[in-house]
Amino acid sequence: MQYPLTPDVKPEFCTTGSFMRLPAAREGARIAIIGMPFDTAASFRVGARFAPQAIRQGSMLLFPYHPIHQVYPFEDAKAIDVGDVSVIPHNIHRSYELMEASVAELIAEGIIPIGLGGDHSITLSTLRALAKKYGPVALIQFDSHTDTWDTYYEEKYWHGSTFIRAYEEGLVIPDQVFQVGIRGTLNHPGDVDASYELGYNLITTQEIRRRGLEEVILQIKEKIGDTPCFLSFDIDFVDPAFAPGTGTPEVGGFTSSETLDLVRSLSGLNYVGFDVVEVLPGYDPSQVTSLLAATLVHEFAAHIALNLKTTKHSK
Amino acid sequence: MQYPLTPDVKPEFCTTGSFMRLPAAREGARIAIIGMPFDTAASFRVGARFAPQAIRQGSMLLFPYHPIHQVYPFEDAKAIDVGDVSVIPHNIHRSYELMEASVAELIAEGIIPIGLGGDHSITLSTLRALAKKYGPVALIQFDSHTDTWDTYYEEKYWHGSTFIRAYEEGLVIPDQVFQVGIRGTLNHPGDVDASYELGYNLITTQEIRRRGLEEVILQIKEKIGDTPCFLSFDIDFVDPAFAPGTGTPEVGGFTSSETLDLVRSLSGLNYVGFDVVEVLPGYDPSQVTSLLAATLVHEFAAHIALNLKTTKHSK
Amino acid sequence: MQYPLTPDVKPEFCTTGSFMRLPAAREGARIAIIGMPFDTAASFRVGARFAPQAIRQGSMLLFPYHPIHQVYPFEDAKAIDVGDVSVIPHNIHRSYELMEASVAELIAEGIIPIGLGGDHSITLSTLRALAKKYGPVALIQFDSHTDTWDTYYEEKYWHGSTFIRAYEEGLVIPDQVFQVGIRGTLNHPGDVDASYELGYNLITTQEIRRRGLEEVILQIKEKIGDTPCFLSFDIDFVDPAFAPGTGTPEVGGFTSSETLDLVRSLSGLNYVGFDVVEVLPGYDPSQVTSLLAATLVHEFAAHIALNLKTTKHSK
Amino acid sequence: MQYPLTPDVKPEFCTTGSFMRLPAAREGARIAIIGMPFDTAASFRVGARFAPQAIRQGSMLLFPYHPIHQVYPFEDAKAIDVGDVSVIPHNIHRSYELMEASVAELIAEGIIPIGLGGDHSITLSTLRALAKKYGPVALIQFDSHTDTWDTYYEEKYWHGSTFIRAYEEGLVIPDQVFQVGIRGTLNHPGDVDASYELGYNLITTQEIRRRGLEEVILQIKEKIGDTPCFLSFDIDFVDPAFAPGTGTPEVGGFTSSETLDLVRSLSGLNYVGFDVVEVLPGYDPSQVTSLLAATLVHEFAAHIALNLKTTKHSK
Amino acid sequence: MQYPLTPDVKPEFCTTGSFMRLPAAREGARIAIIGMPFDTAASFRVGARFAPQAIRQGSMLLFPYHPIHQVYPFEDAKAIDVGDVSVIPHNIHRSYELMEASVAELIAEGIIPIGLGGDHSITLSTLRALAKKYGPVALIQFDSHTDTWDTYYEEKYWHGSTFIRAYEEGLVIPDQVFQVGIRGTLNHPGDVDASYELGYNLITTQEIRRRGLEEVILQIKEKIGDTPCFLSFDIDFVDPAFAPGTGTPEVGGFTSSETLDLVRSLSGLNYVGFDVVEVLPGYDPSQVTSLLAATLVHEFAAHIALNLKTTKHSK
Amino acid sequence: MQYPLTPDVKPEFCTTGSFMRLPAAREGARIAIIGMPFDTAASFRVGARFAPQAIRQGSMLLFPYHPIHQVYPFEDAKAIDVGDVSVIPHNIHRSYELMEASVAELIAEGIIPIGLGGDHSITLSTLRALAKKYGPVALIQFDSHTDTWDTYYEEKYWHGSTFIRAYEEGLVIPDQVFQVGIRGTLNHPGDVDASYELGYNLITTQEIRRRGLEEVILQIKEKIGDTPCFLSFDIDFVDPAFAPGTGTPEVGGFTSSETLDLVRSLSGLNYVGFDVVEVLPGYDPSQVTSLLAATLVHEFAAHIALNLKTTKHSK
Repeated sequence: MQYPLTPDVKPEFCTTGSFMRLPAAREGARIAIIGMPFDTAASFRVGARFAPQAIRQGSMLLFPYHPIHQVYPFEDAKAIDVGDVSVIPHNIHRSYELMEASVAELIAEGIIPIGLGGDHSITLSTLRALAKKYGPVALIQFDSHTDTWDTYYEEKYWHGSTFIRAYEEGLVIPDQVFQVGIRGTLNHPGDVDASYELGYNLITTQEIRRRGLEEVILQIKEKIGDTPCFLSFDIDFVDPAFAPGTGTPEVGGFTSSETLDLVRSLSGLNYVGFDVVEVLPGYDPSQVTSLLAATLVHEFAAHIALNLKTTKHSK
Repeated sequence: MQYPLTPDVKPEFCTTGSFMRLPAAREGARIAIIGMPFDTAASFRVGARFAPQAIRQGSMLLFPYHPIHQVYPFEDAKAIDVGDVSVIPHNIHRSYELMEASVAELIAEGIIPIGLGGDHSITLSTLRALAKKYGPVALIQFDSHTDTWDTYYEEKYWHGSTFIRAYEEGLVIPDQVFQVGIRGTLNHPGDVDASYELGYNLITTQEIRRRGLEEVILQIKEKIGDTPCFLSFDIDFVDPAFAPGTGTPEVGGFTSSETLDLVRSLSGLNYVGFDVVEVLPGYDPSQVTSLLAATLVHEFAAHIALNLKTTKHSK
Repeated sequence: MQYPLTPDVKPEFCTTGSFMRLPAAREGARIAIIGMPFDTAASFRVGARFAPQAIRQGSMLLFPYHPIHQVYPFEDAKAIDVGDVSVIPHNIHRSYELMEASVAELIAEGIIPIGLGGDHSITLSTLRALAKKYGPVALIQFDSHTDTWDTYYEEKYWHGSTFIRAYEEGLVIPDQVFQVGIRGTLNHPGDVDASYELGYNLITTQEIRRRGLEEVILQIKEKIGDTPCFLSFDIDFVDPAFAPGTGTPEVGGFTSSETLDLVRSLSGLNYVGFDVVEVLPGYDPSQVTSLLAATLVHEFAAHIALNLKTTKHSK
Repeated sequence: MQYPLTPDVKPEFCTTGSFMRLPAAREGARIAIIGMPFDTAASFRVGARFAPQAIRQGSMLLFPYHPIHQVYPFEDAKAIDVGDVSVIPHNIHRSYELMEASVAELIAEGIIPIGLGGDHSITLSTLRALAKKYGPVALIQFDSHTDTWDTYYEEKYWHGSTFIRAYEEGLVIPDQVFQVGIRGTLNHPGDVDASYELGYNLITTQEIRRRGLEEVILQIKEKIGDTPCFLSFDIDFVDPAFAPGTGTPEVGGFTSSETLDLVRSLSGLNYVGFDVVEVLPGYDPSQVTSLLAATLVHEFAAHIALNLKTTKHSK
Repeated sequence: MQYPLTPDVKPEFCTTGSFMRLPAAREGARIAIIGMPFDTAASFRVGARFAPQAIRQGSMLLFPYHPIHQVYPFEDAKAIDVGDVSVIPHNIHRSYELMEASVAELIAEGIIPIGLGGDHSITLSTLRALAKKYGPVALIQFDSHTDTWDTYYEEKYWHGSTFIRAYEEGLVIPDQVFQVGIRGTLNHPGDVDASYELGYNLITTQEIRRRGLEEVILQIKEKIGDTPCFLSFDIDFVDPAFAPGTGTPEVGGFTSSETLDLVRSLSGLNYVGFDVVEVLPGYDPSQVTSLLAATLVHEFAAHIALNLKTTKHSK
Repeated sequence: MQYPLTPDVKPEFCTTGSFMRLPAAREGARIAIIGMPFDTAASFRVGARFAPQAIRQGSMLLFPYHPIHQVYPFEDAKAIDVGDVSVIPHNIHRSYELMEASVAELIAEGIIPIGLGGDHSITLSTLRALAKKYGPVALIQFDSHTDTWDTYYEEKYWHGSTFIRAYEEGLVIPDQVFQVGIRGTLNHPGDVDASYELGYNLITTQEIRRRGLEEVILQIKEKIGDTPCFLSFDIDFVDPAFAPGTGTPEVGGFTSSETLDLVRSLSGLNYVGFDVVEVLPGYDPSQVTSLLAATLVHEFAAHIALNLKTTKHSK
């Protein structure tokens, strides 16, 4: 073995910095940041493999205390950063296995994973690990796309099929799946019908604006209740003015202010994991997208810290 | 003649790609995308000559189906892309003639043009072609500026005088002209008074916010009714956060979400043409402006497809 | 002495262009634009020393007339641009003295300064000059941070301590200090408690959204009344989508439209000075931040012109 | 099937513009530009899928005549642009098949392919097509890396193994393989030994500088003689100052002037194909890399036109 | 008239900063920097109107003393910066007149103009002014293109015809015209034959490399001798690695080191003017092109200072 | 103390990633990479505080083996990365102390420091630490500037006075100081005379070109002999085409190829430390400058590994 680490041992896009300079030692940790720099399941723009390090850099603008929830999420939950999974470009199945194994290891130690994508295909491997522990889970997916297309040139696994595969593999509880923020042009009406057919709750951007954020939040909270719940945040949920650095932007989305309100209000659920995906540093010249992603990680951690504090969902 | 096409035959900024990879063959077409890469009538920043190709690249992020209007605009109206007019930098009059001729040819074949500017001066040539066919038309101009300045250093033709020239040449029906979104600092009060004097309906950004989008939409629809109508969209109508790639940005504008709502609601009018102008790729590092412009083209096409579907205005 | 000006005589980042091409001759002037290119008190990103020239370039997109207040601010108040103070990087105290002296000179001639930062530390030197003339002043601080941290590695003077130092030096009237727009993560709760302890009025972004802009404006106007008042605008008050070019961006902020409304509504106060700080051109590829900053300068000038017109506060 | 082309039918990164606005009709053509936008075999930076369209845009700066060779390459050889192969991200083998089939089709019609990569893995599919027609071929590889690593995480097919696979598959004549320009750090000495073991001629950058370009050119020409020959140009052969837009840049390379001299001097060989690979538009803000790549395509075409003219190698 | 300067009075791209912070007062001056921000005669990329201000910003990195020639060019020749000519986009003839008049005024006062373009069409107006004073002049044109194309879409005046028009108007002495650095692809052989037919000395990049810089310099100096001489420097003479910010880059050019040697060696000629043209700030993200242009201006000024010192050509 | 690390404890620009993913544990180490992110002594452009992390990212493109020297520098010398010194912006003296202490600690453990700047002022603190251990040292300074200006606005400590201060403090052996690559404009002749007066060996870029690299290398090696020697590399030694990301670029410099040759040839000296300074990531859009800086670090490490191998200078 060579010294230092060569690309033979770990791909070069797996760097060594940590989120908010968190340590890596796992003892006592309840939250782990984990980089999942896999992006070759993307159909158009690529480069999300560089997102974990960009989000970590974005995190340098954050402070530890969350004044609205009044918690120190990273301290309260003793957060760590376990670095990046050593994925293999263009081998999605081996990469899935590697990511699932890394997440499973965390879960086994009682640590809640916060994944930094990567494209949206990475979520499937996390859901697999979670389902093995918890059985099918509830899912809140912030996204402008449903990602329930069946195939892409006969390929069943790519970033647009994550949530149909999750259904087929029994990883989620269909009527506790919320796809929030769907908008934009489609291949054909069937693109969204697929979600309805799976029994998912699809809530378009237009519907949210019409009904108001509060009603939607109530509906999600009531429906999911105490079920173990995964929150997957595709950054293209947000309008490209606020998150230009992404692979398939859709104009007409939410502001960062609306987004934070929405995410922040979903407190008290029994969260077993989070991820933020589809950040593309190459299209983010002012680094506002990676800052937003890092801020969302802070919000996710605050949810966990809050749960720990209330001894709710803290087993 | 040289092979391949040399700049002697067609300027190099006239490229060959097409919007959403549409074909060029005109048979049966009801919509044509047409590039109008003229930008030398701009007074400050330049480079809109590269906008048609940037908007076409932006269109690669679009899908064919419009889920809100429930149409396949490009299929339903058999849209084509006829490429770029071979304009001549620094000769505005010859460029006008070339653009007018190209548009006229489309109109003669019953094809509705969707122009991709270019600076806002290009609209004059399209209006000339339309007026020859339909007489003076109604006009909905989304813009932060009125473009009714008379001259610029004694030059009567530049991107700030388009709509006073259109008036003088009798190309529009003054009380069916709506200038929507005007805002920002002025040379003097006369800058906007000019519009009132021409009998135009000038609706400032402030007025829209005060009255609400719906009331404004109703007013426009009622007033224009069934008159052949041209919609000209200057991308600086939108706030520069959502459309940084433009020549004379004005802060304090609309979001892309508000913009799409507004444009989408103006359905059912007797549209005879559209354009989107003043996109400057050089100031659009994340390509969000060209994506927004491409999305607007999708909306325009949807209006036409809807009209065809309802057999309304589809002669 | 060398010819032309060498860096020995004036740092190279002090350039010679002027805001909106204003002249420099002071006779009769009531407003002066003054560049304060000091940025070494910043704790993270640097480069605000290039902001004065970037804002001046942004000003080239402005026109002289303000249609809402119906004034020609620069003409009515005979505005000038006196160029940049020749500050000295890494010597904050000598730079303070130089900036204070330049501002004091303007005040002595009855000219109201509009400072172009520079990081937020520059405001302390302006407040010192103002307090010597007017005694402690009222302060409206638009900002996402309180800037009332005490020290940074035992350094008492940096861009995060400006408003605790201003208190200690008796430069402001505590209950007439409004810190508007505070948001984001904190080191610990004490970060904002410091402001309360000083007797400042801290109004968070969340509070503004809950109470509405109008109520907040009323409160500020009532409380400050006729007291000589300084307005300091940290560009990170605005959401980074609208102002990406800044040093410590916080997502979840205001739009440029909301911002202009807010600033514009604060007319009629007895303004004795303004500044706009923390613009970082290096993170502003489309120059939207410097355009917004320039537009704010236009608004500031309009307040002065309005006051002159009403003979209110025009001594 | 949807209209227009949807991503179901062809990936969105396969656009429609053509190199120097060449037509697509194959009749009589002797040269075809063919886009091969496959990039998921890259180990570090990605995005070469956007290179074909970037190189085509770069080609708009070229003129048809080659004054040194005194040919009109595109006219003389009736060049066409057949667009992009519809590759499938993350499925390297199916993508190989699709690329090989497209190239084979051209060869069958007597058309010499000039491939626009894509990462360097694309060359394997072209070599497969060529070997089926011509048997093993001579190869001139301009590159800073040998690309003879065996595996990458047990993956045998990636952009670093192209020329060991080519050897194993018998696609090249080992002692007529020239790897020109090798330089930079290595995993271990075996990285270059692999080439020697395969019987390839490895010529490092240092060796070229020591021996001089002319001697190297002579050696290559003498050794290859009349054998059907493929020229593969990895843009990282050139120093990153001249070609910043690439995936694994190595400092200390050749200038564009030296590069053109070198390529230009290799005239008269029996060329059966060319490609230029590893251009990454995302790292090429001034578009100098794509211009250089387009200029190389012009040089390649000139070689073919020269051969046709001399009736040498023109069967 | 409005205050401050409105675009009615002077276009907004004419800013107020000065080269190396030189003053504007003409008394005693022997050199004047003059901005000529006209760019609408360009055939492809545009934006050179922003070059004068970019070059002035680049000049902030320069110091006054020239250690090789041992002169203080700006002090010795009392250089001034007279700002930008108020040109009119899309009206080339009126712009020519305005530029010629401004230059003529300088010449009349015995001041040698150093023009900052603008596209290469601006040189014609300067040559007109010079010829009126001196009769036809010698010309050294550094360029990768001859700019002796006759017309562009029947337009006789554009940036590619400057030196055929100069010939026709009798502004230059044909056999004392040197076109240095010509390279790249052509429309057809006639593109360069035109220069030979006019009697110009065309020296290609290849020829310079073959013969060596020194021989070429000697030839130029001998041939021009004491004739009043104009030096026009098109920045695309330099390789795009060193000058990416330009409109029609040609790869394979000279380094900045070779360029400076070449320009520096041409001392002692009877210079009556200089310009540097075709800088495009929009393609110059690291500002190396504008720094190079500013450095060339320093070299030009040094030639004048040297001449003054030796009382040679200093009437 | 807060968890995770807050800016109270360590500035946010001190990140956690490591060069080539080296470990931090010091046991047995002979080389340490150490980040010195201090940049407030810079007189013009700022932002070198972000260079250490950018160079570390650039290092991800490197491999461990050095094929020319045939060493594994990082393995052979058991290199580590000890992270960034926690410097304090705008307090140069406290920052000096902190940097000196960190370097001294390494030296005390027999570890050779390779510093990543920061502006060139950081070198003074390293020289102080070295001189305490070794007495005055030999110095090879690659630079386009001498950095022997005395004061900057009466400030004695800034990035332009490093090597006059080093002389005054007796940190270097004057006649074993080599300032290599000096070029560009000056304030006055005294700028370089200062170096001669100190007894330094100043070798200009022009002199190197005239005499040839080999002769210069011989001279340096002979003169320095076995004296403990520090190599300080200011990245502006290299031409801005190859290193655009720097603070005070000078055109007309060396290529990266020449630079590597030069540095590589200086093997066998008794190196006691290295640094690479003045990298500015904000001006380095394609990251070629940070790649070059990382490659230089590889070369530095190879010198140490070579020395260890030959048991020369390895005490």
